[in-house]
Amino acid sequence: MSKTILFKNRPAGKPVTSDFEIVTEEAPDPKEGEVLLKAQYISVDPYLRGRMRDEESYIPPFKINEPMESMVVAEVIDSRNSNFEKGELVSGMLKWKELQTSVGTGLNRVDPDLAPPSAFLGILGLTGLTAFLALDKIGNLRAGDTLVVSGAAGAVGSVAGQIGKIKGCMVVGIAGSDGKVSHIEDKFGFDKGINYNTTEDMAEALRKVCTDGVDVYFDNVGGEILDAVLQNINKDARIINCGAISLYNETKMPTGPRPEGILIKKTALMQGFLVRDHVKDFGRALRQLSNWLEEGKLEYDETIVEGFDKLPEAFIGLFEGRNVGKMIVKV
Amino acid sequence: MSKTILFKNRPAGKPVTSDFEIVTEEAPDPKEGEVLLKAQYISVDPYLRGRMRDEESYIPPFKINEPMESMVVAEVIDSRNSNFEKGELVSGMLKWKELQTSVGTGLNRVDPDLAPPSAFLGILGLTGLTAFLALDKIGNLRAGDTLVVSGAAGAVGSVAGQIGKIKGCMVVGIAGSDGKVSHIEDKFGFDKGINYNTTEDMAEALRKVCTDGVDVYFDNVGGEILDAVLQNINKDARIINCGAISLYNETKMPTGPRPEGILIKKTALMQGFLVRDHVKDFGRALRQLSNWLEEGKLEYDETIVEGFDKLPEAFIGLFEGRNVGKMIVKV
Repeated sequence: MSKTILFKNRPAGKPVTSDFEIVTEEAPDPKEGEVLLKAQYISVDPYLRGRMRDEESYIPPFKINEPMESMVVAEVIDSRNSNFEKGELVSGMLKWKELQTSVGTGLNRVDPDLAPPSAFLGILGLTGLTAFLALDKIGNLRAGDTLVVSGAAGAVGSVAGQIGKIKGCMVVGIAGSDGKVSHIEDKFGFDKGINYNTTEDMAEALRKVCTDGVDVYFDNVGGEILDAVLQNINKDARIINCGAISLYNETKMPTGPRPEGILIKKTALMQGFLVRDHVKDFGRALRQLSNWLEEGKLEYDETIVEGFDKLPEAFIGLFEGRNVGKMIVKV
Repeated sequence: MSKTILFKNRPAGKPVTSDFEIVTEEAPDPKEGEVLLKAQYISVDPYLRGRMRDEESYIPPFKINEPMESMVVAEVIDSRNSNFEKGELVSGMLKWKELQTSVGTGLNRVDPDLAPPSAFLGILGLTGLTAFLALDKIGNLRAGDTLVVSGAAGAVGSVAGQIGKIKGCMVVGIAGSDGKVSHIEDKFGFDKGINYNTTEDMAEALRKVCTDGVDVYFDNVGGEILDAVLQNINKDARIINCGAISLYNETKMPTGPRPEGILIKKTALMQGFLVRDHVKDFGRALRQLSNWLEEGKLEYDETIVEGFDKLPEAFIGLFEGRNVGKMIVKV
C-alpha cells in the first residue's frame, strides 16, 4: 500500500490542513520503460500557494482531488528503464506519494558523494539555483555594492546573502526574529540583520545600516518591506522580485505606495524572476554552487519534518515562519 | 534691456502663474571667450515640475529667485569665442532669458538645413532622443510585439509610437481626447487609440484591443493607466517608466495596487529611464532620427506659443493637456 496527499479545497487565505486529504492506495507496478520510486525527501515551498489558486499562471494550478506535487528526492526501488538502476537516488518534480512510477523524464541523478540527499532540494536544488540565477541574471552584483535580502534566514535568502559576500558586497538581511537575525550574522556572514517584527520604521532602520544606500534588493517578501527598501535605493538600483510571501495569502488586491516615481528618479529596475525559465543555465549554476560548497564558502540550513503525513502541516508552517532555511519533509 | 523669468515659489499642487516673476534687467556684455545668445525657441517640459521640489533628484532643484532653465534654441548675436560665429544657431540647457552669455560649454550647433530650428527642441532634441533611447535601452522591441504608449499624442509618445511602427509592432496609443485619438491614428499611424477620459474600464479596453497581450509599455503617465496595462502584460513584458505626469502634482504619496505579484508571475520588468544618462548615445540616436525624418518615416507636432512672457502659462498648460506634441515658446 502507498499513501498519497490530495488537494481537496482551494484556500481563501492561509491554507489549513483540511485543504488536504491523505488517502491510501495500491502500490503501483512499473510498466516496461518505467521506474518505481520511493520518496525519501519532499520539498515544501511558498510558490505552491500560487498553484492553489484557480488562475492561469506560469505553472498550471493544482486540480481538486488530484495529488499535490513538488520537488522530491526518491530512491529507484525497481527499474524497467535502462537509464536507471535499482538503488539509485534521483530528484524531480513528483507527486506527494510514498510510491509512484515514472518514465524517467525530468529526473536528475543525485550524487550522494557531493552532499546529503536533502541538499538536492535546497542549496543544490531549486532554492540554491534561484538565489544564484536571480543574482546572475538581474542583480549584476559588483564588489562594494550594498545588497539587501529579505526572507534572509530562508532557503533562498540565506544563499543570496552568502553569494553577496563571496562577490564582495555589504550584505544586510531582513528576518522575522532576533534569533534569525543572530543566525544570519553568525552562520551566513551577513554584515547586519534587521528584525522586521521589532522594527517600527523599516525605511529609517535601513537608512542607518545602509549608509551608502541600496544597490541591489533581493526581495522574497514584497509589500511594506519593499516600500521601505525603495526609499533607500541608489541610482541604477536593481530590485529582484523573486517572491512576495507577504502577499500570497491576501484575498483582495494589496495596495501600497506607487513605485513608478522613484523608479524614474533613480533609473532603477524591478524585475520578476522565475527559476524555471532558466533551465539551460542550471548546469553552470550547479557547478558553481557545488564548488563553493566544497570550498566551505556556503552554509545552509534545513528544517526537516519527519513523516509523510506531516506534509500539509510543514507547508502551512512556511507562512508562520516555522522554518529555518529549507523546509523539507523526510518520508 | 532683456527679460528674465524667475522662479518665485515652490508650488504645492499644480503650478500657477504667480509661482513665476518676469523681471527686466540690463542686457549682458559677452566677456572674452563668451558668446551673446538671443533666445529664439524655449522648450517647456513636464520634468521641470520635478525641479520645482526642494529635494535631491537626478538634477538639482530650481532655486527661489533664480531664473528658470530648460532647453533653448538661440542665435549667436555676438561672439568672443572662436568656436562660434555670429549668426549661428545653437541649442543647449539655458536660462529663461531673452539675452544671456555663455562660454559655449554644452551648446550644440543647430543645422537649419536638416529641420526647422524648433525641431531641435523636439524630434531632434531631448524628446526624440528620449523616445528612441528608452526603446533602445529597455524596450527591446521585436517585430510582432504589441507596444502600448501613454501620453501618445505628446512629444515623446508620438515618436515612441512611430518607432514601434517602423520596427513592425502593433501599436496602441492612450490619449486624453477623441481628437488626439484620431490624430495619433491618422497622422502617426498608431493601429488604435484609446481616449482615457471616456473609458471607464481601461484594463478591459486594453484587453479588447491588445488581443495578443502587451509586450512593451512606454509609460509617460504612471498611476491608474499603468495599473490597467499591468493587468494585460505578457510573459517577459518590458515597462519603460519614462514619465509619471499623472503623479507630478500630487501632494501626498500616491498609492495603488502593488505590482510585485504580477511582475513575478509574468517575469516582467519595470525600469526608470532618464535620457541624460545616455549622452554617449545621442550621436547615434540623432543620426537614426534624422534619417527617418528625411525618409518621411517620422512626423511630429508642435504647439508653438508666441511670446517670451507666455512661458509660465505654456508650462502650466502641459498639465492641462493644452499641447499637441512638443510645447515650445517662440520668443
